[in-house]
Amino acid sequence: MNSHSFDFDEIVEFRGHHSEKWDGMERQFGIPAQEGLAMWVADMDFRAPPSVIARVRDVAESGIFTYFGDLREYHDSIIWWMRERHGWQIESDAIFTTHGLVNAVALCIQAYTNPGDGVVVMSPVYHAFGRVVRANDRQLVECPLAVAPDGTFQMDFDRWDGMMTGNARMLILCSPHNPGGRVWTVEELRGVADFARRHDLILVSDEIHHDLVFPGHRHTVMPLADTGIADRLVVLSATSKSFNVAGMHCGNAIIHDPALRAAFARQIARMAISPNAMSLHMTPALYSPEGAAWLDACVAYLDGNHQLFREGVQAIPGVRMAPMQGTYLAWVDFSGTGMDQAEIAARVAGRARIAASPGPAFGLGGDQHLRFNLAMPRARIREAVERLQAAFDDLQ
Amino acid sequence: MNSHSFDFDEIVEFRGHHSEKWDGMERQFGIPAQEGLAMWVADMDFRAPPSVIARVRDVAESGIFTYFGDLREYHDSIIWWMRERHGWQIESDAIFTTHGLVNAVALCIQAYTNPGDGVVVMSPVYHAFGRVVRANDRQLVECPLAVAPDGTFQMDFDRWDGMMTGNARMLILCSPHNPGGRVWTVEELRGVADFARRHDLILVSDEIHHDLVFPGHRHTVMPLADTGIADRLVVLSATSKSFNVAGMHCGNAIIHDPALRAAFARQIARMAISPNAMSLHMTPALYSPEGAAWLDACVAYLDGNHQLFREGVQAIPGVRMAPMQGTYLAWVDFSGTGMDQAEIAARVAGRARIAASPGPAFGLGGDQHLRFNLAMPRARIREAVERLQAAFDDLQ
Repeated sequence: MNSHSFDFDEIVEFRGHHSEKWDGMERQFGIPAQEGLAMWVADMDFRAPPSVIARVRDVAESGIFTYFGDLREYHDSIIWWMRERHGWQIESDAIFTTHGLVNAVALCIQAYTNPGDGVVVMSPVYHAFGRVVRANDRQLVECPLAVAPDGTFQMDFDRWDGMMTGNARMLILCSPHNPGGRVWTVEELRGVADFARRHDLILVSDEIHHDLVFPGHRHTVMPLADTGIADRLVVLSATSKSFNVAGMHCGNAIIHDPALRAAFARQIARMAISPNAMSLHMTPALYSPEGAAWLDACVAYLDGNHQLFREGVQAIPGVRMAPMQGTYLAWVDFSGTGMDQAEIAARVAGRARIAASPGPAFGLGGDQHLRFNLAMPRARIREAVERLQAAFDDLQ
Repeated sequence: MNSHSFDFDEIVEFRGHHSEKWDGMERQFGIPAQEGLAMWVADMDFRAPPSVIARVRDVAESGIFTYFGDLREYHDSIIWWMRERHGWQIESDAIFTTHGLVNAVALCIQAYTNPGDGVVVMSPVYHAFGRVVRANDRQLVECPLAVAPDGTFQMDFDRWDGMMTGNARMLILCSPHNPGGRVWTVEELRGVADFARRHDLILVSDEIHHDLVFPGHRHTVMPLADTGIADRLVVLSATSKSFNVAGMHCGNAIIHDPALRAAFARQIARMAISPNAMSLHMTPALYSPEGAAWLDACVAYLDGNHQLFREGVQAIPGVRMAPMQGTYLAWVDFSGTGMDQAEIAARVAGRARIAASPGPAFGLGGDQHLRFNLAMPRARIREAVERLQAAFDDLQ
């Protein structure tokens, strides 16, 4: 199977299919679904891979939705994927299935920290981290990422060292980074590991986007970047973003250290959660050679979207977007326009009729920014660029 | 559509379909799936209703498994079902979707009690209650059900009053009761409500089996049995047992009281769980007229199974089984044989090649008992009866 087998240019109708991104747009942004472009919620406007559609169809035909037994096929597919795609050898005892990765972060917070403890994030970053840290009565510690002249995020360990008070117990790393799609280098990841050791932090490496890496860049799973970090490391991964099945809310925490495993297992028992049967059927259809072929074609397509979108928005005076290295979540800096967040949002939603995620939700460094989801047919990317250029055409 | 449209006599092959009940039998009981009868895990050997198979097929064909938006269809179907089938009027704000009902119990424990607090159950009862109470470092308080001469469970409030020390904060009611299928009367339910008020307990009414009630009996949802209990009541319900979709791990906590709602919502935010998209699609296909037609036919069939099975096992000297009023989980008392639990289990697993749930797992009153799952084609019930009679034929 090659990339020509998949037609990412096809306009698939998501409206009326319970898509939060499309059907929730009017409620959230006041933009009717017929005239809007939905670029907020982080899922794709592509159908899921043919291999998973076939598997779900088979389950439907069986009529069997009972308690799921025998996890070997499920575990084997995860083990195979990590070895084939990431060069990472894991064992099935390391795999803990969670109800999606925000739930996995919650389990880590509850398993490894106490109320009042600090939990460190590198801002701006995926907004759910802060939400779940605060919901658990822990203190959110935002370490601001440095920003290079072209907008690229960079680690800033010296500054962050000075911010540590001794109260923090955990660091949540987003790798690759959302928003903006930085794929951290091995040197940067070693720096993160050193930082975690230096401040005695449990390191939660959220790698939900680690399959979405553009040509010319290479993701390294945290345990391979620094082999000495395993005793304080939890790696989170999922099929949800890679294969556009996020609605199934299924992910994995992969844990090497026996004490960390025991504490995590205890927390799962307290919450009494077990994975839903359909996700256990779907995962082996995704972590498969057929899934890999779809993914490779999809990533190449996303990179094309990214280049087109970046060129288009950078043509607007005062607008800057760093080159992306992975993911499909562009981070656009409107500060050079001199407009405040309300004005930026009003132009993008009101004039361009585009629903994009407001930057301040991502924490420190988010002001005067929007996050745009680029996982859509290319014709829509072109349309988005035209609308954005028109919405700011008084700046030309 | 009438009951003749559904063929519950059909032998559906569950082996090799990731059925824990069938594919896990050899591991758990040492009984090879080819020769065993699986009567342990509480799901049915029937295909799920045609209406839900059609819905899952439609979702498969759409290829859309993204973040789910717009819960109105989902909520409306629950509201419709509770009104049509239970005469109970609820509002959508009362509905909290959980990751199955054991998770819902865990959420209640965490929302409404503190570590060390007592949580009351009426034993013998569904084993997961005790497991999740203990996992949360609460104290399990087992109030033994009284047993009538024919084996029927009865409330024993006077005795239970004497057992309360003031430490208990919550009561988990199983209504109808698992094991054994008692459908509590309105008078008994009022007694439970009085008991909860008398000892200042939050009342969690687990009604997962409330659609599986045999002709001649009538289930009353707790808030209709005692309208004065709403300020301390959480009702749990799900499609999982009624329609044989338990592998999807989706259920609902229905809460009227604003303070109880707020505390429950806070706990869901802490755990960061949201329902999986497939369950949200499936529920309206089940809580529907088509689902109701299937269910009515299924319940009539289960009642026939129950009568056949009861007649068969009661023919074994020393074996007693109360008449069931609902559910498909028979509770069989082998104490009259004079055998201990190990001997009973060895005969049933070893001679009869039947996998049944050991009574002691259900707590006080479980010794010398087994729970048998009767949700299978009638030919298998006949086979089970023959095998059990043969396994104990030295008692004839």
